Amino acid sequence: MSTPAAPPTPAWLRPRPPITSGAEYVESLRGRGLRVHFMGERIAEPVDHPLIRPSINAVARTYDLANEDPALATAVVGASGARVNRFLHVTESVADVVAQNKMQRRLGQLTGTCFQRCVGMDAINALYPVTWSIDQATGTSYHARLRAFVAAMQAQNLVNGGAMTDPKGDRSKGPSEQDDPDLFVRVVERRPGGVVIRGAKAHQTGCINSHWILVMPTMRLAAADRDYAIVCAVPVDHPGLRFVVGRQSCDTRALERGSVDQGNARFSGQEALILIDDVFVPDELVFMAGETSYAAELVERFTAFHRRSYVCKTGVGDVLIGAAALIADYNGVAQVSHVRDKLVEMTHLNETIYGAGIASSYESRPTPAGNYQNDELLANVCKHNVTRFPYELARLAQDLAGGLVATLPSEQDFADAEIGPLLHRLLRGRSGTTAEDRARVLRLIENMTLGRNAVGYLTESMHGAGSPQAQRIQIARQMQLEDKKQLARSLAGIES
Amino acid sequence: MSTPAAPPTPAWLRPRPPITSGAEYVESLRGRGLRVHFMGERIAEPVDHPLIRPSINAVARTYDLANEDPALATAVVGASGARVNRFLHVTESVADVVAQNKMQRRLGQLTGTCFQRCVGMDAINALYPVTWSIDQATGTSYHARLRAFVAAMQAQNLVNGGAMTDPKGDRSKGPSEQDDPDLFVRVVERRPGGVVIRGAKAHQTGCINSHWILVMPTMRLAAADRDYAIVCAVPVDHPGLRFVVGRQSCDTRALERGSVDQGNARFSGQEALILIDDVFVPDELVFMAGETSYAAELVERFTAFHRRSYVCKTGVGDVLIGAAALIADYNGVAQVSHVRDKLVEMTHLNETIYGAGIASSYESRPTPAGNYQNDELLANVCKHNVTRFPYELARLAQDLAGGLVATLPSEQDFADAEIGPLLHRLLRGRSGTTAEDRARVLRLIENMTLGRNAVGYLTESMHGAGSPQAQRIQIARQMQLEDKKQLARSLAGIES
Amino acid sequence: MSTPAAPPTPAWLRPRPPITSGAEYVESLRGRGLRVHFMGERIAEPVDHPLIRPSINAVARTYDLANEDPALATAVVGASGARVNRFLHVTESVADVVAQNKMQRRLGQLTGTCFQRCVGMDAINALYPVTWSIDQATGTSYHARLRAFVAAMQAQNLVNGGAMTDPKGDRSKGPSEQDDPDLFVRVVERRPGGVVIRGAKAHQTGCINSHWILVMPTMRLAAADRDYAIVCAVPVDHPGLRFVVGRQSCDTRALERGSVDQGNARFSGQEALILIDDVFVPDELVFMAGETSYAAELVERFTAFHRRSYVCKTGVGDVLIGAAALIADYNGVAQVSHVRDKLVEMTHLNETIYGAGIASSYESRPTPAGNYQNDELLANVCKHNVTRFPYELARLAQDLAGGLVATLPSEQDFADAEIGPLLHRLLRGRSGTTAEDRARVLRLIENMTLGRNAVGYLTESMHGAGSPQAQRIQIARQMQLEDKKQLARSLAGIES
Amino acid sequence: MSTPAAPPTPAWLRPRPPITSGAEYVESLRGRGLRVHFMGERIAEPVDHPLIRPSINAVARTYDLANEDPALATAVVGASGARVNRFLHVTESVADVVAQNKMQRRLGQLTGTCFQRCVGMDAINALYPVTWSIDQATGTSYHARLRAFVAAMQAQNLVNGGAMTDPKGDRSKGPSEQDDPDLFVRVVERRPGGVVIRGAKAHQTGCINSHWILVMPTMRLAAADRDYAIVCAVPVDHPGLRFVVGRQSCDTRALERGSVDQGNARFSGQEALILIDDVFVPDELVFMAGETSYAAELVERFTAFHRRSYVCKTGVGDVLIGAAALIADYNGVAQVSHVRDKLVEMTHLNETIYGAGIASSYESRPTPAGNYQNDELLANVCKHNVTRFPYELARLAQDLAGGLVATLPSEQDFADAEIGPLLHRLLRGRSGTTAEDRARVLRLIENMTLGRNAVGYLTESMHGAGSPQAQRIQIARQMQLEDKKQLARSLAGIES
Repeated sequence: MSTPAAPPTPAWLRPRPPITSGAEYVESLRGRGLRVHFMGERIAEPVDHPLIRPSINAVARTYDLANEDPALATAVVGASGARVNRFLHVTESVADVVAQNKMQRRLGQLTGTCFQRCVGMDAINALYPVTWSIDQATGTSYHARLRAFVAAMQAQNLVNGGAMTDPKGDRSKGPSEQDDPDLFVRVVERRPGGVVIRGAKAHQTGCINSHWILVMPTMRLAAADRDYAIVCAVPVDHPGLRFVVGRQSCDTRALERGSVDQGNARFSGQEALILIDDVFVPDELVFMAGETSYAAELVERFTAFHRRSYVCKTGVGDVLIGAAALIADYNGVAQVSHVRDKLVEMTHLNETIYGAGIASSYESRPTPAGNYQNDELLANVCKHNVTRFPYELARLAQDLAGGLVATLPSEQDFADAEIGPLLHRLLRGRSGTTAEDRARVLRLIENMTLGRNAVGYLTESMHGAGSPQAQRIQIARQMQLEDKKQLARSLAGIES
Repeated sequence: MSTPAAPPTPAWLRPRPPITSGAEYVESLRGRGLRVHFMGERIAEPVDHPLIRPSINAVARTYDLANEDPALATAVVGASGARVNRFLHVTESVADVVAQNKMQRRLGQLTGTCFQRCVGMDAINALYPVTWSIDQATGTSYHARLRAFVAAMQAQNLVNGGAMTDPKGDRSKGPSEQDDPDLFVRVVERRPGGVVIRGAKAHQTGCINSHWILVMPTMRLAAADRDYAIVCAVPVDHPGLRFVVGRQSCDTRALERGSVDQGNARFSGQEALILIDDVFVPDELVFMAGETSYAAELVERFTAFHRRSYVCKTGVGDVLIGAAALIADYNGVAQVSHVRDKLVEMTHLNETIYGAGIASSYESRPTPAGNYQNDELLANVCKHNVTRFPYELARLAQDLAGGLVATLPSEQDFADAEIGPLLHRLLRGRSGTTAEDRARVLRLIENMTLGRNAVGYLTESMHGAGSPQAQRIQIARQMQLEDKKQLARSLAGIES
Repeated sequence: MSTPAAPPTPAWLRPRPPITSGAEYVESLRGRGLRVHFMGERIAEPVDHPLIRPSINAVARTYDLANEDPALATAVVGASGARVNRFLHVTESVADVVAQNKMQRRLGQLTGTCFQRCVGMDAINALYPVTWSIDQATGTSYHARLRAFVAAMQAQNLVNGGAMTDPKGDRSKGPSEQDDPDLFVRVVERRPGGVVIRGAKAHQTGCINSHWILVMPTMRLAAADRDYAIVCAVPVDHPGLRFVVGRQSCDTRALERGSVDQGNARFSGQEALILIDDVFVPDELVFMAGETSYAAELVERFTAFHRRSYVCKTGVGDVLIGAAALIADYNGVAQVSHVRDKLVEMTHLNETIYGAGIASSYESRPTPAGNYQNDELLANVCKHNVTRFPYELARLAQDLAGGLVATLPSEQDFADAEIGPLLHRLLRGRSGTTAEDRARVLRLIENMTLGRNAVGYLTESMHGAGSPQAQRIQIARQMQLEDKKQLARSLAGIES
Repeated sequence: MSTPAAPPTPAWLRPRPPITSGAEYVESLRGRGLRVHFMGERIAEPVDHPLIRPSINAVARTYDLANEDPALATAVVGASGARVNRFLHVTESVADVVAQNKMQRRLGQLTGTCFQRCVGMDAINALYPVTWSIDQATGTSYHARLRAFVAAMQAQNLVNGGAMTDPKGDRSKGPSEQDDPDLFVRVVERRPGGVVIRGAKAHQTGCINSHWILVMPTMRLAAADRDYAIVCAVPVDHPGLRFVVGRQSCDTRALERGSVDQGNARFSGQEALILIDDVFVPDELVFMAGETSYAAELVERFTAFHRRSYVCKTGVGDVLIGAAALIADYNGVAQVSHVRDKLVEMTHLNETIYGAGIASSYESRPTPAGNYQNDELLANVCKHNVTRFPYELARLAQDLAGGLVATLPSEQDFADAEIGPLLHRLLRGRSGTTAEDRARVLRLIENMTLGRNAVGYLTESMHGAGSPQAQRIQIARQMQLEDKKQLARSLAGIES
């Protein structure tokens, strides 16, 4: 990947050479002194923590793919000719939007989990037209600031997270109506040259593994919510931030000896709670401050992008289908008709998700600001299928796995001098296979349907980018019932 | 629609000016002396038969749409610059393939039924590369003949059907293995200048409403099936053809007085059985004759196109969603949450079909012959959803309709001097609506879920372009299990 | 069937000997001078009308079954030792309630349609405890009147329908709030010795084929609805009643020559609208008049019985499964794995309905009045599955049928001298079968999934005994969330 | 619970007083010197191991329920009048079979997991008629031995497990065809007075928590499999047995401090692999030895009982529904219509399972040996729904839980002096609730849908008592297609 001459580094950006590989990316995270909490302890160095590291590996994979397959995982900035990581690219064509989906599927295949960079990519693409619109209407300069921020990210090839979801408290009340004003991130002070923000963001995908995060409001805002209408960029190593790593099912297996029982020892997702304690943000990094009426547009543009980004789960689904096919093979039943039929069904459901997702991307239209935005209705349809079909794929994978997926002895027992040899002998499948390989694929299926990556493949599929009902509300907004009623009237012969 | 100067008319084509409207199309069908049978009688003039006419109206709509929205329903032939009806166009770009889908959805919306022209469109696009391949391999001139045929169709703007499905007899046996040799269409004689064919084609969509039909084999063929490897064009008014109109649920309501109880009085689909009795076909109209090894490619290319053509059903689904919304409104429950939620679900399922269909079209690639072919896996996924979701939309529409959809008094009783006024009074819905409008929309829902157009919306969705298991077989062929198994092995840490 | 000495005939009951067979039942319907309207005409004698007769045949089957299998279709009245038709029996034990279900399934199997007598059976069993409660609370004598009425029905072995559903008008308003007071049946006059009622009842199952109907309110009532709180019995041949037969899909096929295209030529269901024009009802036949606060209990008791009565649809489902198996056999694919699997799925769904239904009956408890009432939650669960699974069975049956189910030529074309022989030859399935048998089973599947009996198997399954949302409301009422929350609290360690 | 005078203790039974409470049961397990392996270590005392103990607590609950609700959880032996734990009771009536189901549901509610005693109960009830049949046919005395064994279990009130599933190796081969003869348990030596057995049993529910296990063959056997046709009882503390505890998702959370993150800290299921190393079994404890032709009947009778025993999962489902309702309440959305609707759907699916299960029990018939056996078709239908619906309940519970269910900070972080107070403040729901209670219910939902008890609620629901395809095979055997085809023929007018 050739990176063009970087523009002058802005004052707020620590100078450093661009990251050119996954390995360099991992090193870039070291020594930042982040305040990361997990299970009652402060983690000294996340990079070296066995429970955190798999999530870093997953992000690192996005860097390596950019080198391995630049056509897929990088893009060229039209204005400069610079080739940048696709996760940092502002879309310039329909093909760019589609390519995001194809890259996402590939990374899902390669990691079997959440690689954590889509939020940031979708955030800059959603902010691009929204900042443009605010500037047009009110004479602010958010759009230029955003472009400078993005250019800086591109130049150094950094990871840019996006932080949207607030803790929310009582869901029947808006931000300014809560008893506790800090349940949504807000501006607590306006100073010359910047603002001070406070609050928290929940379920933050890959935040610890990012260099910067883009803070955004999580819902449409009322006029009274002015302090909550804040969009800005914050460096992850800002001392005002603390991170509390969320527990995942089977997370502590990463702390055990061995590599089998983890299922997918190399890769995992990451969700953490960010506590924001009076962080000063200079004006150059503020992209919205008080324009409450644009919050809804931002949320809608972001969710439109992000809901079709869940095409990544079809890549994860490919892994699960492969694992199901593999265990069927080890069990000696690969050609049995009901087994075959279940693999077809898994594929059918997986591709159904994919179809709606890339259809949404293919139907992209230019925004007033010039980048390309995907179709919102199909994006919601894609995501809504994601809240259903991975659960059915998981069910079918467990069906094909057999009961052993939930009763298999531990890796250490397989290695035990006394009983290990007997386990290896008794728990083999068809001849020509080993009990260890069988255990490995069973642990992978466990990992994806009950364990650590089930969090990403199932629960995050349910709630990420909005829970099912959020999609239904958007589908309802866009289903054009009056037009459809007119079609029916016309054919039924009803005067209207 | 401007039509360019037509090329010289071939000998086999009766000279006539191009058809320029739906009305002209209807006239073009008159006086052909077709041998059409229905319910034990020979139909003198199908155009004037009240039971046949709605199916002709649906085809006519494709002509009128070409005038109303040429960008959607016509296309320009690159070589000549001629603008032709899209149903007669050989795709020259990805955009052409996608536009077919958008036209299909629109026509589904406008007719609420099957407009019968997709088979012909998909047939010429599938034959285009297959004839090219045969010619390349064997030195035949099928491709040039096909191009001449298509050009002639375009010049006169005719309807070109496609005839694939044979009666099949014992499904465990191939054509040449059947007891009765005529269960599949075959060449019974080879003469200088042409061949003589015999047999039958079942479930022939819109054949009586076509000017020409393209006969094609229905399955992959063995070497012994040489006589069955026949592709050719036959004029519908050839005296060797007879047509037996298939019965549809509620078909005879078209013969009743009034316009309410038909549900959709103007439009319907049409399926008929074609009996082919020793028809001579001149060489110019023969596009395959004996090349058994290409039958499979033809079937696969055709079904790839045709399975995503079922996107038309999303247009029909739009009508049904509209009808369901309308009856909910008349019943006074349009804002009730479960009603609203069912409309969202209907929309979600409908758009899920659409997504996979247009995704397949967007993923088109050029064939060796130069036209564009859609993605086969996504086409099968699209069609497979079509075998499921319209049934669920129908179920939900009946749910929203209320029981009256299946117990409503007849139109004549509403008109009855004695009881009619009482019926009008008692069977109103919310204030501001009339019992007649309510009856009309209930009849439309009945028409689409139980009646005449349920045949097209449900049963044809199930079996047209191949029954569900046919899609599962194709999905199985394309699901790339070995690649997916390798993904799983890699993440599970299995040496392979 | 031995019938014991009848009690003295009440004044309001025309003396006649008990009906002892289906044939006698049919004769009993003759010459009643009913005012029956259909398609704009007054039907002179319903018994002889080819469109009505199949619905009469279905009721007649309930008489014949009583003779063929008295253990199943009759019951003994404990007080008198009289053996009566089970449809007229007041349950005296759990076994009685269960036996109703088994009889219903058997009759579904024998008729393939709705045999129309469950409403009456469920009505008398629901009224039994409700009248008892009113009498206990208010000193009325409704219960004794009801017992006398039931005893008279038993003695003469008559068909007793139940009429509940009013036209309803604006569904957001109660009976007394409607613009038009006649949208719900009501008392318009109170005279010495009786009341005069007016209004209409919609979707009345088998009303024309009944001897008496029990009029009941359709919903819980407010104090202002006093005139609408009327339960009474009316003879079907009362001159104040008019009947408008509802149209069914494909209904007029019954008027065609032949017996194939009807699918199920012998049996059908029947739904009609009853117009009630100032009918005087003597006090002896009034079982509630003004006690609005008991309407809810009546509706709940009735729907509890009636929702598990939909077990009848599993008998109809047995026919459809058999038809699907038969066509698979004729098509030569009976042993193909996906075909077999679909038959298993159909059976699984059908038996799932059955399980919940008979479980509800088995869980019956005695009412305060002494008869036995089934479990309400399970009854609602049973019916709710009925609103889903028959649609899926129908979809699978159409899948197995093949496309011919919706494109088959007419019976008359098969009989046509010119083309008939060719049709018989070409439309055969595997060797050893005939095209006619194949046509017959295809028409039966069409009849049950699109045609006349689809009305009963699908739409009535959806809306009969209450639309899906009505079951969800009842399930919500009985789901005991507080108890379940306490279970969760206890296990989660939450102090409460 | 009064226990009658015990019969004389057989020689093979260590004398001890009957167990009269859960606490005594727990003590009874102590000091047995079992050879239990887990994660590479030998567990010294399972009773005191924090990871094992919750599974013991679940079994203990069956003892306590017998004291709390003897009508539900005990039964009277007709011959002796002795009141015994229902899990040790041989059914004597339909009511006994139904009562098993009601007890199972209650224990599912009380433990939220698998309480492990159904296999033993179902095993003795299946062996009861099978041993009787063998004795009748061959003059053996298995039945009397079994009765003596059961009487001894009852007298001391012990836990009797059942061990059926062998490791199986290549699933396309029978026991005697495997390369390795020990892949199925077999008789390796016949000595005077007994037999010696060897092999292993996989997925053994609660085996470590049992006093005795009943070894049984897992499939129908061929004549060549004579050595594998062995049924016998073995004491769990026999030195020839070793146990390898299967890993469960999140199992090691039981080893962590605190009680929140376990979700359900008190109760869990247990599955282990039993290694059987040349164990001598005296004749008195052998109930089948070589009678291969009875293996199929045994498997069918056992699975018929056991598949409807999965009604226990509806009790677990009650807990999950309660947890979902609780979190909706804490989130402040309990009255939102889509939330309410999802709780209704969960209830509907849960009760659908229950309906088929108890219907199966209610339809019990006496066996030739005199005990009562449930309906096999409905039992398979019940279990088949269990392989589907709990997954959908789990999906809906995760939907209602919100994303926090998979991103919640650890219990230790909530307790952390620095960040804990902030977490408690920010992660509260609606006012009046605490973050801790919210965390507890979220952890319970995690436990049941991803964690330790998801193994029992999901994966064991899939595979326990036979994987889905096993039920489909049994449904296929019992679907009486020929009868159903005859119903269809009769209505279609087909001569047969």
